[in-house]
Amino acid sequence: MRNFKEEKELNTLNHSCAHLLAQAVKHLYPEAKFWVGPVVEEGFYYDIDLGDKVITEEDIPKIETEMRKLAKDGKYIKREEITKEEALNRFKDDKYKLDLIKRMDENETVISCYTQGDFTDLCRGPHVESTKELKNFKLTKFSGAYWKGDAKNKMLQRIYGICFKTKEELDAHLAELEEAKERDHRKLGKDLGIFMFADLVGKGLPMWLPNGFILRHTLVEYITDKELKLGYKHVMTPSLGNVDLYKTSGHWDHYKDDMFPKMELDNEAYVLRPMNCPHHMMIYKNFLHSYKDLPIRLAEIANDFRYEASGACCGIERTRAFTQNDSHIFCTPNQIEEEIKGVIDLTLDVYRDFGFKNYKFRLSLRDKENTDKYFGNDELWEKSESALRKILKESGAEFYEEEGEAAFYGPKIDVQVKSAIGHDVTLSTIQLDYQLPERFELEYINEQGQKERPVVIHRAILGSLDRFIAFLLEETKGILPIWLAPTQVNIIPVNNEFHLNYSQELEKKLKDNNFRVELDDRNEKLSYKMRESQIKKIPITIIIGDKEIENKNISYRRIGSKDTYNVSFEELVELLNKKD
Amino acid sequence: MRNFKEEKELNTLNHSCAHLLAQAVKHLYPEAKFWVGPVVEEGFYYDIDLGDKVITEEDIPKIETEMRKLAKDGKYIKREEITKEEALNRFKDDKYKLDLIKRMDENETVISCYTQGDFTDLCRGPHVESTKELKNFKLTKFSGAYWKGDAKNKMLQRIYGICFKTKEELDAHLAELEEAKERDHRKLGKDLGIFMFADLVGKGLPMWLPNGFILRHTLVEYITDKELKLGYKHVMTPSLGNVDLYKTSGHWDHYKDDMFPKMELDNEAYVLRPMNCPHHMMIYKNFLHSYKDLPIRLAEIANDFRYEASGACCGIERTRAFTQNDSHIFCTPNQIEEEIKGVIDLTLDVYRDFGFKNYKFRLSLRDKENTDKYFGNDELWEKSESALRKILKESGAEFYEEEGEAAFYGPKIDVQVKSAIGHDVTLSTIQLDYQLPERFELEYINEQGQKERPVVIHRAILGSLDRFIAFLLEETKGILPIWLAPTQVNIIPVNNEFHLNYSQELEKKLKDNNFRVELDDRNEKLSYKMRESQIKKIPITIIIGDKEIENKNISYRRIGSKDTYNVSFEELVELLNKKD
Repeated sequence: MRNFKEEKELNTLNHSCAHLLAQAVKHLYPEAKFWVGPVVEEGFYYDIDLGDKVITEEDIPKIETEMRKLAKDGKYIKREEITKEEALNRFKDDKYKLDLIKRMDENETVISCYTQGDFTDLCRGPHVESTKELKNFKLTKFSGAYWKGDAKNKMLQRIYGICFKTKEELDAHLAELEEAKERDHRKLGKDLGIFMFADLVGKGLPMWLPNGFILRHTLVEYITDKELKLGYKHVMTPSLGNVDLYKTSGHWDHYKDDMFPKMELDNEAYVLRPMNCPHHMMIYKNFLHSYKDLPIRLAEIANDFRYEASGACCGIERTRAFTQNDSHIFCTPNQIEEEIKGVIDLTLDVYRDFGFKNYKFRLSLRDKENTDKYFGNDELWEKSESALRKILKESGAEFYEEEGEAAFYGPKIDVQVKSAIGHDVTLSTIQLDYQLPERFELEYINEQGQKERPVVIHRAILGSLDRFIAFLLEETKGILPIWLAPTQVNIIPVNNEFHLNYSQELEKKLKDNNFRVELDDRNEKLSYKMRESQIKKIPITIIIGDKEIENKNISYRRIGSKDTYNVSFEELVELLNKKD
Repeated sequence: MRNFKEEKELNTLNHSCAHLLAQAVKHLYPEAKFWVGPVVEEGFYYDIDLGDKVITEEDIPKIETEMRKLAKDGKYIKREEITKEEALNRFKDDKYKLDLIKRMDENETVISCYTQGDFTDLCRGPHVESTKELKNFKLTKFSGAYWKGDAKNKMLQRIYGICFKTKEELDAHLAELEEAKERDHRKLGKDLGIFMFADLVGKGLPMWLPNGFILRHTLVEYITDKELKLGYKHVMTPSLGNVDLYKTSGHWDHYKDDMFPKMELDNEAYVLRPMNCPHHMMIYKNFLHSYKDLPIRLAEIANDFRYEASGACCGIERTRAFTQNDSHIFCTPNQIEEEIKGVIDLTLDVYRDFGFKNYKFRLSLRDKENTDKYFGNDELWEKSESALRKILKESGAEFYEEEGEAAFYGPKIDVQVKSAIGHDVTLSTIQLDYQLPERFELEYINEQGQKERPVVIHRAILGSLDRFIAFLLEETKGILPIWLAPTQVNIIPVNNEFHLNYSQELEKKLKDNNFRVELDDRNEKLSYKMRESQIKKIPITIIIGDKEIENKNISYRRIGSKDTYNVSFEELVELLNKKD
């Protein structure tokens, strides 16, 4: 997705187009007053005072027509420099422009204005030469916006738009926007009954609906099963802890801003946990360990809680309550390499299962200019960073390095996956940590019978399950693989009178085989039911009519295809059991 | 278990025995000073100031010997009444007794003393006639106890004991105590690696260890599976909510004392949820419902949090963070009866699976003397209570009624299960609620196309999973049924040199069949490994020697039995799959 703010030429074009929008609005609504019209990442907007008038769906085409006319006119865009005094005089009837002029730097004595035909606006510029260059635009959305973002002020009308040099670029971008909208996990999550939010429950606190429960549960069982087979031991620890636990771990000093406020009771203070590492440290510490017992791989599907500003919350991608596919591996220094390689293998194995191909490893190092953000000394950091670099090199994986991306307790290997609409998403992470074992005074008895500190490897494969599901919905447009789909099969009898019995028998047989099946026995038209099955993104739709009953077989369609296949029950079961 | 405080005769006997203890201590430690020696539910104790002396394991038999001698002596126990002044004079060197005398009621001018031989103590009595009656006693435990329970005061020595009329009663009670100790879920939970606590994590916050995770997970899958098959829809909702949510539900007014304190952020307040009903109300409210969609049965394995005083927390039986097997059924008034019957059926089905036989239904009504503790009007309460009574009567279940046990929003049917050591435990609950639908303004469209309020049935079958597991450990002494046991099978090769290969093959085959298997290949004696397998309470121990390899079969023992059985692999799989 292109960035209108950062691409210089695009920025100038869109800035100019904001003026074109303002000029058109002024023609249609002469009482209009204008606040600011900046370029942002996604295009331009202008905040406009239209008195009591509220922009509606119908106004937008009218404004676009007027803009198109003005662009065709092709007026020269003239820059003019005037003194602050002149400016105050020229805009003396416009409280918004006066406010802007008055808030300018004291030293800024000259102010620039841009004029195109009958319209003049204050602006630093630069602008394009003529409105002729502004032909390829589109107004994309509109909303109310409080003046200066303050709910006590008047609500202005904000209109968003985009502008490109060529029609081809505009069309390509509009197609991309359409694609992103279709893939938006918030829309898909709602349409498919995956999750919901409610203000009364709270911001950033998703509630997983029945379909979402099945999706999550299937994912959790999938990864837990893999981990148990690899010798991970799953545990379950509480969502909160004594504040002293987080003082011991260092989170209270280094991570407090991202945490919920503490709760005081019985002369103690508790806090919702932002991470579950300290709980796992306490489990390790509770037992005596010999080098023979290591590595110990504690894993948890762990509920964690972080304070996010309400504006930063985004669907299930960024929430205040989320669940991590977390693990802490306690090992001897000699085991680090093998353990990290094991984690990389598991990561690649999972990515293969999901068909993720477009990813890179990132070696996340600390910011050397800001060492006080991190625990520990330079020597330990050098050692950990070198160890991870060596492992990555030996693994042959493609990787790049980035400073400032480490955790406060150690460097990381992050796996950056490129999403279908071009975002870089961190799904998996592997972190090397000498610090928490030190702070929690963890020990094991080595071969010589002496006490030694273990090393801790923090790792998450699916990362946050919530963000993983957001990613998955975006990638698949909600068409989940059969094994993950909340409803795997939809059975539609052609006619309830004749075909319901056979359909019900089939439903029962599939349920007995533990498949997730629906039977649509409503008295609706076949075509209507077929379309709804597509909308609900059910992978397999089975149609039962005379022929199927006669031949004792099954006709099905896969979602997105108009081809019908005819199979036996056994063949259907085989298809449903495939992990494709 | 007998109650020493409430059984009058036992109370007098034990009160007298406290004096016997004090007399013996005075003989052995002449500097001893005595605070109070009351009878409590579990027997008697005496708090004693022994200067710097701390009672140890070795002191107890010595004190018992002296007590036995004094009992044999059979001194007459003489009651004497003296004035407060005389008492102050007689005990002038004893700051503890002076404190007691001074704190007596102003109007109490006469004070009674009891004397047996060389020992006199202040006491209201009554006492038995002679120390001869105090032969059948036992000192059960000891600990430090701050004077008046205040940590700023001196630490006194508290010695506990019990006394019975006959040796038979004493022996029976000691056997019961031994039994209760063996069944104590806190001990079993520790020994079997089910859960742990750590002060730094927090009081009443259990951490489930790998074996506990498997036990919980298996239970959760068991009940979820049953529920999904019965048409329940599982959801997952966050552990906290906006305080306004709990103001709407009424918890903030009626339940706040049992909740964690609120957390303020962004001009909002959030709170850990004590129950998840409000979240489920919000899910129902999010959608339009027709009478055709009802009943809707939302279920959740839900994390809830309640404030318990640290002294009230008890293992996993009573915690501050626990998980409920919860559901809310939204139905029309006409569906109440059928739905509640369905819940009763599910409850009985689950109890059959676990072999629970000793239970009663309790109809829990509101306290009519304290109606302000509850929501709603008299009429609605009468209606709900009658409805539940009618259903119970018709079900033919044995039940009793108890006032004051209702929830604040409605009456309940609780299932009271009698535990192996005689406790009454509430496992399941079914609650009828007209109030929350009203407060959340829930609606459905009835057959006439009009809006109507649904009714909500709250229900929990396993109740709190944590308490359920505590109960299960107590019932089974930790010998869990095969399907629930964290490790189901332990394979022991008689000799690693000759029998390891076959054992490993067997291990793999069982794991491939999804059984939880351990292979004990340590170089230890067979008898040692067999004993450890018993201590770890693994249901099936397999021994592999020459004979088994030769005959290609398997020898196993069940826990607690010395009989060895010989079976084929297929027979073993059949045994392991039984839900007994």
